[in-house]
Amino acid sequence: MVKIAIDAMGGDHAPLAVVRGAEAAAAVGAGKLVLVGDENAIGPLLRNRSGIEIVHAPDVVDMKESPSNALRRKKDSSIARAFSLLKSGDVDAVVSAGNSGAFLAFAIFTLGRIPGVERPAILTIHPNVKGTKSILLDAGGTVDCRPSHLVQFAIMGDVFAKHALGVEAPRVGVLSNGEEETKGNELTRETHALLSGAGLNYTGCLEGTDLYNGMADVVVTDGFVGNVVLKVSEGLAEAIIGILKEKMGGSARAKLGYLLLSPVFRSLARMVDYSEYGGAPLVGVDGVCIICHGKSNERAIKNAIMQAKGFVGTNVNGHIKDAMREFASLMKYKEL
Amino acid sequence: MVKIAIDAMGGDHAPLAVVRGAEAAAAVGAGKLVLVGDENAIGPLLRNRSGIEIVHAPDVVDMKESPSNALRRKKDSSIARAFSLLKSGDVDAVVSAGNSGAFLAFAIFTLGRIPGVERPAILTIHPNVKGTKSILLDAGGTVDCRPSHLVQFAIMGDVFAKHALGVEAPRVGVLSNGEEETKGNELTRETHALLSGAGLNYTGCLEGTDLYNGMADVVVTDGFVGNVVLKVSEGLAEAIIGILKEKMGGSARAKLGYLLLSPVFRSLARMVDYSEYGGAPLVGVDGVCIICHGKSNERAIKNAIMQAKGFVGTNVNGHIKDAMREFASLMKYKEL
Repeated sequence: MVKIAIDAMGGDHAPLAVVRGAEAAAAVGAGKLVLVGDENAIGPLLRNRSGIEIVHAPDVVDMKESPSNALRRKKDSSIARAFSLLKSGDVDAVVSAGNSGAFLAFAIFTLGRIPGVERPAILTIHPNVKGTKSILLDAGGTVDCRPSHLVQFAIMGDVFAKHALGVEAPRVGVLSNGEEETKGNELTRETHALLSGAGLNYTGCLEGTDLYNGMADVVVTDGFVGNVVLKVSEGLAEAIIGILKEKMGGSARAKLGYLLLSPVFRSLARMVDYSEYGGAPLVGVDGVCIICHGKSNERAIKNAIMQAKGFVGTNVNGHIKDAMREFASLMKYKEL
Repeated sequence: MVKIAIDAMGGDHAPLAVVRGAEAAAAVGAGKLVLVGDENAIGPLLRNRSGIEIVHAPDVVDMKESPSNALRRKKDSSIARAFSLLKSGDVDAVVSAGNSGAFLAFAIFTLGRIPGVERPAILTIHPNVKGTKSILLDAGGTVDCRPSHLVQFAIMGDVFAKHALGVEAPRVGVLSNGEEETKGNELTRETHALLSGAGLNYTGCLEGTDLYNGMADVVVTDGFVGNVVLKVSEGLAEAIIGILKEKMGGSARAKLGYLLLSPVFRSLARMVDYSEYGGAPLVGVDGVCIICHGKSNERAIKNAIMQAKGFVGTNVNGHIKDAMREFASLMKYKEL
């Protein structure tokens, strides 16, 4: 049975939202769950212990703490202990809504990288107009990227699209400021050249619009641009929904319309709501780990746990290892 | 009276949409308009010549043509002639929905840069949840930027927010992957250091969400990231509206709701619709010029013409010149 460690102390609404999320996941068959954190804080909140155990960790990494500081001084923190459990094989995955820099630092330091992967990437999943999903990576794992990093992101995104989303031959592209090869910056141009011979279903350079029009299954970019894209999307979706809601309270006519359309708005809100997807896997490290939005609520935590269970079940990380090995052989072969 | 040259041959729907847009603008007092392009193509389309003249240009820059090629070989193109009219003082502004690379090339080559501005920037205006507007620059003018370029963008954005949007002390920030100073890349960190002493109402590093939450009046970034942000926003807004429309056709209840809410949706669509804003000024070159979306319709062209008239009227470019001079003095003073 899959066993998942959850950082009970991480996130703006921890530990309550995390505990409730774990209970909700346990209730729908998430497997065995381990809440890692201060047992005096978690214990009294836990209403149903079936399928859930607590592993005590006395310390907490603050949301604003510097990752290097956390790595040096917070070895007894909930996030550090959760990764230790994963490293030792006591659990199969880690879920945390805590300090994302510390999450990255402990993930890389404790788990190490998959051979052939120089840098890990945060992978996010975005709905599009075609009703399919597009993968974006890196959404903030590695800010300063070299072309080889982006090629590795592309390979991992390809594996993810195949094994987690069931896409047969994922269309992979590089995010740029235009589709023409003359556009882009040094990073995208060099990545474009490398990806053209990387053995993927590479479709070339993409524009920002392609993330939501269903033209690509995997959109590759560096962690700086990816994070900006993720946050701009979040901000715009919130703004549109906020403005719609405000305008709908404006008149009796609008209120009635809103009432009639409420199922439509709920489904739209779900579509653009981060909590629907739960979290974002950090790919490239040697272990399944999911990083959640700091403001994660119970639902987001529950969904992230179910996501983690799914990734363990489909052995995405094993497939990434295979793909990196195959890519290394392909490159060796090309050099001959 | 303000006189504006319009590239009649530029854009996916040229010359018809451009001619109709010019007529619509002329009808609401845009001033004198000059349609630049093939007179045999424009003449027969023009239904009302009052306030509109035609300046013949035999050649056209194709939408896919390389800017350097256009610059070398298309000296008799509509876009080249339009900029020549601006340079010679025959008109006060240029509007074009044509090849954006060629637009940039002719603008820089013909008009030159404002003293103190190393690189021009495309400036876009975005509505936010607070009901105000946020300026983004550079949205694609200069792909590879140095920190000094971003500082100059900040100064120009500040002037624009003051004189075109009427914001008293515009809050200026640098787009990054987090608000903490430890985040960001080399470009944002160096820009952050420079902007802290640039005499602006500088509020620090911004996240992507801040473009739509009203936390900043001016958001500064390089042209690569800015273009991606612009296109991602366009793609997501289109996706959300597309999905809403689709779902609203789903049931009788949803259809009725849609009917009742149609004014709300129209106002939302207007808010996120590029054609509402017309176009984006290219700032930093010595002349008012507005670049429109390639797919611009009549409405977008009309709004871009009215925008150009406004920028000429408020003498935004004169204020940018003053601000660049003041900034140079400030820097000189600091060095002493």
